Amino acid sequence: MTEKQEIYLDHSASTPVDPRVVDAMLPYFTQSYGNASGLHRQARASARALDQARRDVAETLGCKPKEVVFTSCGSESDNLAIRGAAWAAKLAGKGHHLITSPIEHHAVSHTIHQLCEKHDFEQTVVSVDEFGLINPNDVAQAIRPDTALISIIYANNEVGTIQPLAEIGAIARERGVPFHTDAVQGGGYLDLNVDRLNVDLLSLSGHKFYAPKGVGMLYVRQGTRLVSQQTGGGHEGNRRAGTENVPYIVGLAAALKLAQGERETENARLAALRDRLVGGMLAAIPDAQLTGHPTQRLPGHASFVIPGVEADGLLMHLDMAGVCAASGSACTTGMPEPSDVLLAMGLEYTLALGALRLTLGRSNTQADVDYVTRILPDIVTKLRASNPVYAPIV
Amino acid sequence: MTEKQEIYLDHSASTPVDPRVVDAMLPYFTQSYGNASGLHRQARASARALDQARRDVAETLGCKPKEVVFTSCGSESDNLAIRGAAWAAKLAGKGHHLITSPIEHHAVSHTIHQLCEKHDFEQTVVSVDEFGLINPNDVAQAIRPDTALISIIYANNEVGTIQPLAEIGAIARERGVPFHTDAVQGGGYLDLNVDRLNVDLLSLSGHKFYAPKGVGMLYVRQGTRLVSQQTGGGHEGNRRAGTENVPYIVGLAAALKLAQGERETENARLAALRDRLVGGMLAAIPDAQLTGHPTQRLPGHASFVIPGVEADGLLMHLDMAGVCAASGSACTTGMPEPSDVLLAMGLEYTLALGALRLTLGRSNTQADVDYVTRILPDIVTKLRASNPVYAPIV
Repeated sequence: MTEKQEIYLDHSASTPVDPRVVDAMLPYFTQSYGNASGLHRQARASARALDQARRDVAETLGCKPKEVVFTSCGSESDNLAIRGAAWAAKLAGKGHHLITSPIEHHAVSHTIHQLCEKHDFEQTVVSVDEFGLINPNDVAQAIRPDTALISIIYANNEVGTIQPLAEIGAIARERGVPFHTDAVQGGGYLDLNVDRLNVDLLSLSGHKFYAPKGVGMLYVRQGTRLVSQQTGGGHEGNRRAGTENVPYIVGLAAALKLAQGERETENARLAALRDRLVGGMLAAIPDAQLTGHPTQRLPGHASFVIPGVEADGLLMHLDMAGVCAASGSACTTGMPEPSDVLLAMGLEYTLALGALRLTLGRSNTQADVDYVTRILPDIVTKLRASNPVYAPIV
Repeated sequence: MTEKQEIYLDHSASTPVDPRVVDAMLPYFTQSYGNASGLHRQARASARALDQARRDVAETLGCKPKEVVFTSCGSESDNLAIRGAAWAAKLAGKGHHLITSPIEHHAVSHTIHQLCEKHDFEQTVVSVDEFGLINPNDVAQAIRPDTALISIIYANNEVGTIQPLAEIGAIARERGVPFHTDAVQGGGYLDLNVDRLNVDLLSLSGHKFYAPKGVGMLYVRQGTRLVSQQTGGGHEGNRRAGTENVPYIVGLAAALKLAQGERETENARLAALRDRLVGGMLAAIPDAQLTGHPTQRLPGHASFVIPGVEADGLLMHLDMAGVCAASGSACTTGMPEPSDVLLAMGLEYTLALGALRLTLGRSNTQADVDYVTRILPDIVTKLRASNPVYAPIV
């Protein structure tokens, strides 16, 4: 093992909070703690911090501050976008049809499922190719006169594939259908300019870019109608009630600014590490396959399927060797089921059971990558030896 | 002025985070940052912290850990309880009638209003007396065969009145109707034992008891059916999707334990300060009136109406004198409307415009109380002098 006690390769699941972000948040716990809705110095200090955070986020997205809605997480952002837009359309008699893909995060797919199952909405799920890519023409074909919303993930959490959002968005705009994207995985790495992306609704989650877990945001283009899903006080322009979480909102804004500011150099560094990791892995385990798009993918994201192993055993052995890794979405690990995303991409059921996701971040070095590719073959050999049904292709 | 730069008398709006709570949270930002859903050491450390927090909160409430659902705030807890129980009943064909009071927090009243306006639910609003007290018999009278939920606030945020929850809960239990309470204001001060209170659903918010803004919890009695309002991963027993906010959940549990542990001594201290404040205020401004119940009220809560003044001017002058105070709910200050709560208690419109809420907390001393009662008469005299319609009763 290297000198490190731990090699963290699960940055798509969560990131540590940047110490600069912790510093930005700390004053808002004990010194400046007013409820931003009040009418005194403590309240005003909180309101000012919120305003500044909103302006900073808006600058990154190229939008108006009032188009930024702070939420408690990416899942809430997705829920508000989808439930909010779906109900707004339905209650206005404009339709109840939703378009999505088979590789969405569960915060999107399960929400649409609930709307269909319990509230008589309908969905069309467009297909993806073997790399997890959506064809914008398929989205165009799926649009109906009663389509209320299109929701397509920006970059997939399990396989890292980045979708042609701007093209899909242009189609949605032309046809007058609101377009939402779950951009949670892209927050720290991809262009978030909402006009270049042609999106009306965009979800982010702080803890994917070194802000804390428990804060997110939803961009809502002016004129996009949402029925609020959390009612009460008139916070966030009547779109999301609840006393604002000032420390975390300040933290999210600081973290987004840092990540987006360092994006070019850090993306280049991560992409080089990732390419070394992918090359090393495929050399070390010749029958492993890269999943997702070979180039159009998140910079630090490497995902594989390894024949003859099951993900949980693999992760357990990696953990014992000091490596924190994942099989796919952190929201579904622990399940003995293969990933819907991998199945939608056409992978065989048994192969999809052997998924491994290694996602690099700021703490990782070349030594980390080399360590993983050095230890993995032995682990795989051991697991295959105890798998009665594995027959290697010779 | 006293030596203090600032006298904070708005603890019902928000509290500073206890430094012991900050200490409990800090390791979960930069050292222990795993997504609790993962399968590695970092994830397990987060999962362990969550488990412990859940057990600690359950101990205070006298419930099972799995009956504790962590949320992002009190408003979310209220929304989940009401929307969740309302839809569960409606979709099961069990009814669409909701019972509530006219002195609920907006997170309850606006949510019920939205359900009635957009989704064909019906509500009965039971009345309150001049002290803001509900008569349990009125609740019993309002129950119909199709009643899906009763939601009654534990202690009111604007006037501090504490409701006879256990009696109302006993009626609800006997009639087989789920019973929710917004216990947000009571979290740090009142008995939270869910069996003694006879509640099925109970909302708390961390920042009312020295945990941060942006975390809450909902107690859900086993067997109480809720339709999840935030879907995605299977977090919180499929009742609330979203990566768990480990630092704040740890913080909420620590703060609740501290507040409940120190409750008896601190309540006695606060009640004595409050009585001194109420006495001082009514002596200094003879035509001011205490609002809410004279004795059955939160220990640190003092609320008044002052004839001939408008709340905003009063708060501005107090702020200039270093005192942070409120008129009523922080969620509605800045509005030139009188409080619905005060009107429901039978106060005259113009009188209700002169509401002042002074809520004491850990930082406050007798000197603070005396300072406020000393400076207020001059402020009131000044404001009345510029009020053309004020005619003092002589």
